[in-house]
Amino acid sequence: MTYRLGIDLGGTSAKVAVIDSRFRLIEIASVPTSGFPTPKDAVALIAKASKQMNYVKKVSRIGIGVAGDIDFDRGVVRISPNLGWRQVPLRSLLAKHFKHPILVDNDANAAAWGVYRCQTPGRIQNMAVVTLGTGVGGGIIANGKLYRGATGSAGEIGHMIIDEKGPRCNCGNFGCLETFAGGPHIVAYVKEALRKGKKSSLSQLLQRNPAQLTPRAVAMAAEKGDAFARSVWDRVGHALGVAFGNFIYLFNPERIVLTGGVAQAGRLITKPLWKTLNKRTFKTPLKAVQIKVAPGSSHIGVIGAALLDP
Amino acid sequence: MTYRLGIDLGGTSAKVAVIDSRFRLIEIASVPTSGFPTPKDAVALIAKASKQMNYVKKVSRIGIGVAGDIDFDRGVVRISPNLGWRQVPLRSLLAKHFKHPILVDNDANAAAWGVYRCQTPGRIQNMAVVTLGTGVGGGIIANGKLYRGATGSAGEIGHMIIDEKGPRCNCGNFGCLETFAGGPHIVAYVKEALRKGKKSSLSQLLQRNPAQLTPRAVAMAAEKGDAFARSVWDRVGHALGVAFGNFIYLFNPERIVLTGGVAQAGRLITKPLWKTLNKRTFKTPLKAVQIKVAPGSSHIGVIGAALLDP
Repeated sequence: MTYRLGIDLGGTSAKVAVIDSRFRLIEIASVPTSGFPTPKDAVALIAKASKQMNYVKKVSRIGIGVAGDIDFDRGVVRISPNLGWRQVPLRSLLAKHFKHPILVDNDANAAAWGVYRCQTPGRIQNMAVVTLGTGVGGGIIANGKLYRGATGSAGEIGHMIIDEKGPRCNCGNFGCLETFAGGPHIVAYVKEALRKGKKSSLSQLLQRNPAQLTPRAVAMAAEKGDAFARSVWDRVGHALGVAFGNFIYLFNPERIVLTGGVAQAGRLITKPLWKTLNKRTFKTPLKAVQIKVAPGSSHIGVIGAALLDP
Repeated sequence: MTYRLGIDLGGTSAKVAVIDSRFRLIEIASVPTSGFPTPKDAVALIAKASKQMNYVKKVSRIGIGVAGDIDFDRGVVRISPNLGWRQVPLRSLLAKHFKHPILVDNDANAAAWGVYRCQTPGRIQNMAVVTLGTGVGGGIIANGKLYRGATGSAGEIGHMIIDEKGPRCNCGNFGCLETFAGGPHIVAYVKEALRKGKKSSLSQLLQRNPAQLTPRAVAMAAEKGDAFARSVWDRVGHALGVAFGNFIYLFNPERIVLTGGVAQAGRLITKPLWKTLNKRTFKTPLKAVQIKVAPGSSHIGVIGAALLDP
């Protein structure tokens, strides 16, 4: 049996895990990374947590997924807003603690690779994994390989522009998919509509405890038949339908997997999504694609990092 | 020296050509295909033209690009509106006339492959070729290979939706890139604006001889400083900028090549295109991409067909 070490490095914590050659999670640990640690400190913490693991000595290679813009070939974090890092030679820093081959990739790519390797039938060769959470991230598999493009920046499906006159995005542009399907944007849209007098069971919740007005609460209201709450998900599904339609026409995948907290609304999203998709006129690529919702709370990011290939 | 036979089959004519292993065009012939020929008749005409060529006996393989939706693996034309064909087993029909390995692909894919193999430096691995003509077609090269996707339908960049509330497209949808950047749509937009009283040197042309109001005439007026004509190209460039921005975020290519008649407007298009692209906030993929205009009137489609690989 061979083992690999995976690291999922975000702005709140870093997960470290050992997986075996059957992709099973053997050990996992977590270290805090909030408060913008220096790269050296973060790497030291990760190395310490790894060395306390029983199986670390059996590990043959290391993969790390980092939230940010990554130069995969050079193993450099170009920029990570969540960590406050710029031009960090992460592979070199890790190499001071580990003798193994080390691969550094974007965290969305690592998660997409994890979904592809662990949750997807082998016949599927072309796929996207789209994470609907605070942001909307993506990773693309083309011809059975993680597709990185010229600079490792491929797969930014969340910042496809759906409507140039749409809401302002955190990225600075207007009408990105994320402004329709990202959690905080959905909540802001609901609050604005309720403030303007929309009738909904959610207005009581907003008055009683605004913090509880989450995408999950909007999904529960919709499930109970709240018409406004349903219309909110129709809007999310429609935006995803426009974006996925464009993506499918370009990329002709066999599967798109939705994951992350917001995606757990499930059929509330996929039904209007397909309604919009079915308005497209070229049917061959539509018939070829399945859209699946995957559970969002697993360790797929750290497992995918461990499974990264050169 | 080895030789290949290429065929570029459209709704007006079929080009047949022999190329050598240095990608040079050795012989070329053309046969008419207008009036919706039966598949059998069209194949017989193509075979006859081929057999009259001097080098056809030295040919080791055959590639054919067809305007339509193609099943590459099975060598079947699923549908070709230009030829009036449905479910035509083109590879089997050709195999009755030729003993060589035969590959059947979409004509836009063949042209993209021709541009990639003949006009692109080897270091470039990820690219799109976008043809701006009557329609807007596309082909994608990923990791140095023609990217076909699940059903050979990939690369339909012309039918990405730029603005859901935009003009109606021939495909039946609204606001596809083609409705902004396809030749007939540009001309229709100009005529409509002139009818509504826009001041432009083009209004004389419209009155005198409407048939001369072509994209080329609009480009010439813009070059001479006609403000309205310039604004027409600004609109084309902006629409391409939105579409290419989305494409670049997804696909992170090193190069996009514009070809076809409309693309010959050159900097009139690429300047506003880059203005729109530069509003995007993630700079890494923008810095990595070049946008080039290639001459549109070459034999690159038939050469690309000859060069198709399994």
